[in-house]
Amino acid sequence: MTATVTPLIRTQRRGSPPTLGPLLSLTADDMNAVNAVILARMQSRIPLIPELAGHLIAGGGKRLRPMLTLACARLLDYPGTRQHKLAAAVEFIHTATLLHDDVVDGSDLRRGRRTANHIWGNPASVLVGDFLFSRSFELMVEDGSLKVLKILSNASAVIAEGEVDQLTAQRQIGTDEDTYLQIIGAKTAALFAAAARIAAVVAERPEAEEAALDGFGRNLGVAFQLVDDAIDYASDSGTMGKAVGDDFRDGKVTLPVILAHARGSDEDRTFWRAAMLGQRSGDDDLAHAQSLLAATNAIPDTLARARHYAERAKDVLSRFPDGEARRALREAADFAVERGY
Amino acid sequence: MTATVTPLIRTQRRGSPPTLGPLLSLTADDMNAVNAVILARMQSRIPLIPELAGHLIAGGGKRLRPMLTLACARLLDYPGTRQHKLAAAVEFIHTATLLHDDVVDGSDLRRGRRTANHIWGNPASVLVGDFLFSRSFELMVEDGSLKVLKILSNASAVIAEGEVDQLTAQRQIGTDEDTYLQIIGAKTAALFAAAARIAAVVAERPEAEEAALDGFGRNLGVAFQLVDDAIDYASDSGTMGKAVGDDFRDGKVTLPVILAHARGSDEDRTFWRAAMLGQRSGDDDLAHAQSLLAATNAIPDTLARARHYAERAKDVLSRFPDGEARRALREAADFAVERGY
Repeated sequence: MTATVTPLIRTQRRGSPPTLGPLLSLTADDMNAVNAVILARMQSRIPLIPELAGHLIAGGGKRLRPMLTLACARLLDYPGTRQHKLAAAVEFIHTATLLHDDVVDGSDLRRGRRTANHIWGNPASVLVGDFLFSRSFELMVEDGSLKVLKILSNASAVIAEGEVDQLTAQRQIGTDEDTYLQIIGAKTAALFAAAARIAAVVAERPEAEEAALDGFGRNLGVAFQLVDDAIDYASDSGTMGKAVGDDFRDGKVTLPVILAHARGSDEDRTFWRAAMLGQRSGDDDLAHAQSLLAATNAIPDTLARARHYAERAKDVLSRFPDGEARRALREAADFAVERGY
Repeated sequence: MTATVTPLIRTQRRGSPPTLGPLLSLTADDMNAVNAVILARMQSRIPLIPELAGHLIAGGGKRLRPMLTLACARLLDYPGTRQHKLAAAVEFIHTATLLHDDVVDGSDLRRGRRTANHIWGNPASVLVGDFLFSRSFELMVEDGSLKVLKILSNASAVIAEGEVDQLTAQRQIGTDEDTYLQIIGAKTAALFAAAARIAAVVAERPEAEEAALDGFGRNLGVAFQLVDDAIDYASDSGTMGKAVGDDFRDGKVTLPVILAHARGSDEDRTFWRAAMLGQRSGDDDLAHAQSLLAATNAIPDTLARARHYAERAKDVLSRFPDGEARRALREAADFAVERGY
């Protein structure tokens, strides 16, 4: 399976573009086990819970975060099966945050499908998110590692902080790149980091390897989010499942906007300020925003920033032995960026 | 401190009415320690988090659930201090559910103050709830008991299930008493049960005592919720901080409604059905509802049901040695019901 992506910039590349294929192959059997855990543990005596959770869980997500846990366990030649429950716990945390994010953003579409809050309403999305979040802790408790519990409870608190931080920064054109990196480091990269790190915990590896995998996940997460931010100004909802301009209309000050604003004329800055405040959010305004992004090279430069983090992620892997797992993870890091081209 | 309550029914009573006084005295020192943990652990680099959380946490709640943990630890003569962090964790879970409940119900008032979602909006309330929930798990992880983690993660999942269950039952006049007891057993009593039970875990008492305290908390929680349901049709917002008729306007089928509907004429049932569907939700309709409740004795009988659970709660305590803690807990169970008279 390879995702269909909309090219943001067409570049001449040597060889075939990176894909998630190797990672998917590497983790296919483990992922079947994880999917079985997910399916079993999203059940409840209340039918609405699996119905709503299943809509999102079955809704075409790549399960990148649990896949990271599985691939890192393979990287470390961990022979057991503890990673299956824990990868499911990671996916539950992720699903819970998506359900709540869609409520927070008032989103109607995710991955090209109607959002759960659009179908079942905000109340149900909030509560089912809470349920999945609780279930993720039940899974961790069953695994029994306090270290894993610590890593994932901390990551969850950091994610919530990052989300509140982004909410506070929303519509604030003054948000700078450092602040923005802190926000996405919390709201996105913390879970990537934790997902990778816990593989070292179950494999009982030394702290330094835990930290290395944490760094791998964290850099990958930042790269991933930056590319998402770029795609928001270039995709169409048919291919990416996210309507182009969602961030624009929500007044989310992402890196492309930060760069275009910083590099723009006074007039451009006035536009960006008004746009982020929601005073310029029509289709014409979006087209104008896209022209300003193009004039300032903001999209390629956002992708170049993403490339920087992806390279750092790949370099972290150098300390681990070469093999199928390392190659798959490196290619996934390349894919995280290249899907934006 | 004694709470000011609105009498629902004035009864002749021997002696002075029960109060929370003994429980408050018993736990005063411990509660100071818990409050310090709460204050320290609701902090964040994001100022909105302590601001919003503090509004609710400082907003006049009785901290009944953490008080239960503290009093049960005293009941067992537990000499340590582990209960402080865990009681704070319990309060964080409770606060998180309140924040989310107010979003789910679209409430404007809680305990006579504007709700957090009313002041800061639904998105912030959802996210700060998530933050507090994560923090509660961090506190439990620091304590380090997998048993406590299991009890509270399970309680959290059950609470969320109960909330979804209530959401599904909302506006359904067909909800019967058994179903309703199951809902409040999950959404309210599960956390009371867990709060009491974890005291036995930290005191390293046998399973039977854990189960006994669980039963005490569970019965107390059911009694507490049933009285709340009655008060909703009789309080005024000045004294209880909850506008009278909130449940009525939200179409929440609580026990008073279930009893009045079951005992009413066909015409009355037609009214209740329409009222729960939101077709009869004006002040006149509320007054009519109150007259039907009076005609069917629904409020006193709801309180009698509550009394039944409070008595069961008190009987569970018989297996524990008499003393200040047991007396305080027994009086708290009486208070839980009597505040409704």
